[in-house]
Amino acid sequence: MKLKARLLEIQAGGRSIAILDDETASFLGVHSSDRVRIAYEKQQVIAIANVASNFPRNYVGLYEEISRKLGIKGGESVEVQSAEVPEAIRYVQAKIRGERLREKEIDTIVKDVVTRHLSDVELASFITALYIHGLSMDEIEALSRAMVKTGSTLSLDKRPILDKHSIGGIPGDKTTILIVPIIAAAGFTIPKTSSRAVTSPAGTADRVETLCPVNLTIEEIKEVVKKTNGCMVWGGALELAPADDIFIQVEYPLAIDPMLLPSIMSKKKAIGATHVVVDIPTGRGAKIKTIGEAHTLAYDFIDLGKRLGMKVQCAVTFGEQPLGWAIGPALEAREALSAIMGNGPADLKEKAIDVAGILFEMVDVENGRQKAERLLESGKAERKLRKIIEAQGGNPKVKPQDIEVGDKKAELTTDRGGRVLWINNEDTAKIAREAGAPKEKRAGVVLKAKLGENVKKGGVLLEIYAERNAKLETALKLGEKLHPIGLTEKPEERMLMDRIPTRVIERKTFVLER
Amino acid sequence: MKLKARLLEIQAGGRSIAILDDETASFLGVHSSDRVRIAYEKQQVIAIANVASNFPRNYVGLYEEISRKLGIKGGESVEVQSAEVPEAIRYVQAKIRGERLREKEIDTIVKDVVTRHLSDVELASFITALYIHGLSMDEIEALSRAMVKTGSTLSLDKRPILDKHSIGGIPGDKTTILIVPIIAAAGFTIPKTSSRAVTSPAGTADRVETLCPVNLTIEEIKEVVKKTNGCMVWGGALELAPADDIFIQVEYPLAIDPMLLPSIMSKKKAIGATHVVVDIPTGRGAKIKTIGEAHTLAYDFIDLGKRLGMKVQCAVTFGEQPLGWAIGPALEAREALSAIMGNGPADLKEKAIDVAGILFEMVDVENGRQKAERLLESGKAERKLRKIIEAQGGNPKVKPQDIEVGDKKAELTTDRGGRVLWINNEDTAKIAREAGAPKEKRAGVVLKAKLGENVKKGGVLLEIYAERNAKLETALKLGEKLHPIGLTEKPEERMLMDRIPTRVIERKTFVLER
Repeated sequence: MKLKARLLEIQAGGRSIAILDDETASFLGVHSSDRVRIAYEKQQVIAIANVASNFPRNYVGLYEEISRKLGIKGGESVEVQSAEVPEAIRYVQAKIRGERLREKEIDTIVKDVVTRHLSDVELASFITALYIHGLSMDEIEALSRAMVKTGSTLSLDKRPILDKHSIGGIPGDKTTILIVPIIAAAGFTIPKTSSRAVTSPAGTADRVETLCPVNLTIEEIKEVVKKTNGCMVWGGALELAPADDIFIQVEYPLAIDPMLLPSIMSKKKAIGATHVVVDIPTGRGAKIKTIGEAHTLAYDFIDLGKRLGMKVQCAVTFGEQPLGWAIGPALEAREALSAIMGNGPADLKEKAIDVAGILFEMVDVENGRQKAERLLESGKAERKLRKIIEAQGGNPKVKPQDIEVGDKKAELTTDRGGRVLWINNEDTAKIAREAGAPKEKRAGVVLKAKLGENVKKGGVLLEIYAERNAKLETALKLGEKLHPIGLTEKPEERMLMDRIPTRVIERKTFVLER
Repeated sequence: MKLKARLLEIQAGGRSIAILDDETASFLGVHSSDRVRIAYEKQQVIAIANVASNFPRNYVGLYEEISRKLGIKGGESVEVQSAEVPEAIRYVQAKIRGERLREKEIDTIVKDVVTRHLSDVELASFITALYIHGLSMDEIEALSRAMVKTGSTLSLDKRPILDKHSIGGIPGDKTTILIVPIIAAAGFTIPKTSSRAVTSPAGTADRVETLCPVNLTIEEIKEVVKKTNGCMVWGGALELAPADDIFIQVEYPLAIDPMLLPSIMSKKKAIGATHVVVDIPTGRGAKIKTIGEAHTLAYDFIDLGKRLGMKVQCAVTFGEQPLGWAIGPALEAREALSAIMGNGPADLKEKAIDVAGILFEMVDVENGRQKAERLLESGKAERKLRKIIEAQGGNPKVKPQDIEVGDKKAELTTDRGGRVLWINNEDTAKIAREAGAPKEKRAGVVLKAKLGENVKKGGVLLEIYAERNAKLETALKLGEKLHPIGLTEKPEERMLMDRIPTRVIERKTFVLER
């Protein structure tokens, strides 16, 4: 039937939603969450109907996503009809029943996800069913391929193309800023895309952004890689696997991540990677708690890589404390720059050398670890980093002290001395976030003591940096409340780890990074 | 932080949603689907944040649900803060992991559902997890109780209180219009609430509405029941189990119904029922396909009834064809009125007498079936129906022919003669809907042949009634395409029932009625 278009002048977060009043909806035989086809001149879209009780009759309310697609300014007469439910619904229902999905069925789902033909309710049900029933490796492969097919790709006419990925989980992991220059300095191609922080105090894109722009187009990336062999850019706007950005919207509130493997590996495939190291930080305070879990995940990464035509190796790394001392975008960039210049924390340099060494050995470089170490210590990696910074539009002469950090500063001290027995990754991250990270790039935390080190009574456990006094104060208060660092003279004095009075399910801060 | 309120002037379908631009959201540390607390003067609400990329900075966009609660007109400065996720999320996550939920945990979930503290994504995940993992009878009981606790109740100071419920699925089931008067005529109390059609051509509330108003308040229901012992009203606006209206919003697009038992039984409990008959139409074309399935469901109803303090018996009824001849609100009301006046189809009268008889026997009336039959045949039930119609505000003298049916009429004929071998319930319902039912109350279908009857070549299979010629035509076309009635001279000529070329999953028209 003909309805008048009324523009709502807001976006529906990418969703394809149209509003109908209940009389009009009944007349069309449309129930909330049924589909309608909206046609205007030669354009048409499928939208999900939201039925409202107070919407004017004979109108259809259009969010910007739809009005823009149809080229509508408001007030036009559009043809609205009930439409079939998308084919993908059938396969979502099959998955709910626990059936295995075939490649063609998964293609249909991913296509309908990207075109926003599935509602949040249907997506959430699909993700939940995937999580509960699990995915076969055939399904994981099909999902990965479908996500690549529906996204952009980076075509470099070079071979091999190296890449690394960390599943995240420990604060302060700025290893990428060292690894990319080491690999590129050896003449290998490494077009690295990274994410911004969602629930952590800094993502690699946030860190690098304090050194140079990271929001590059595919064409700009090609230029930078042509000049320098490498890049460190934000992957978020490249649409390498746009389905993932939609899946993540429903995974995040549920804190489940059944799409982890396809999500990570589709993006590696999309940039054309041939050799990939996946870093799996492991430990009580990390996302992966035990070596056993790390192995299971690692074999899945390797198997999936093989199916997608990529060589994959995994590095299980120590994840029981933050990496280095600094946490927060600017503080971490400063620390990474110091480290590549020869200073900075040993654990950061060790890890960078380890991961780069594995990558070298994967492409048949002998004594890969030694080569990585030499490139770092000789200053070649530093020179390469500066070239990448320059190519991306930053200042190649930047010194660590040029990177501004918050000028409001406080110290968290201890009222008892002792040896550091544990550092709580999550609590440390929370304090850095409370101080303003990642949005306030100069905010964060610097650890003054790490595992096994001694702290005197009254000594400083960590420094907090902030851009604003209010944030500094709340972060300090949070630090005093959380006790993120545990000290003891004798470990045996602290045998009790937890008491379980009732079911307390801690919400995971987030699914693995991807 | 202080943000300016901007009214969106539309509803979010009851949802509690606030829109923030991404810079403002980052500043608050809020991600899409995180919660925010919005305070204005002495009021505050928790809303789910939708982060938009084109929303003005330092504004918060409020749908009407929220602006009304806060008493905001637009432009006011409101305090917006990041808020904790609701406690219910933990238990949703526990259910996703397959854990059994305790009563207190279920109470928390249902409370957070009713206050709209859970998003569609979280609700869909919960419903999916319930469906996949199944519910224990303890959980079903706790859900039922929680749904009663969060809704309105009807308190009548009478005992016993009788009720009946059909899980639906066969078109034309107007039995309630006969049963309520039979029971009430015997002096028993039966305050019957019914639903409107969602995906069927008529719900009982739609049928009764062509005889008298059905949208009564709790107080009005009390008055009607006081006068007549019974009523036939629409339950939808009574808020007997408001959680169910929200659950159903996510169950409908997924076509799964894990909440069926709590949904039905909480409403029986809320109106104070002590004795309930549940009608389970069973057959290939019904929702429940086999006697075995019907028994399993029946035992669950009986067990749950016992736990909630209600005596329950179930009637497994023949469900392989529509009940009576008429389908569509007015056509069915007319047929029910004829039947209670002594005419009308035999299957309808038989079923009404059967169900009423069971109810009588449950409250220790001897020869219940005979009593029901006598009340129907003596005209006492008719007189009672007229009193109920009058008490609800209708015309007590209404004659069947007074009930207007569509004046556009067409016939679906057959090009071969034979005996009726099957009638497809779903296709018959689709034709009635295509003709305009349930919204166009006078539209529908009248069967001219039922199972086992003979039709001559060129004879009429069904009549279609519509209010508008366009609807009549499309309904007739659909009828010709669907072949809703199967005829054959010899059943053995039609051995092939289906061919399975590929996975075809028919979308269920809907979950069981409730």
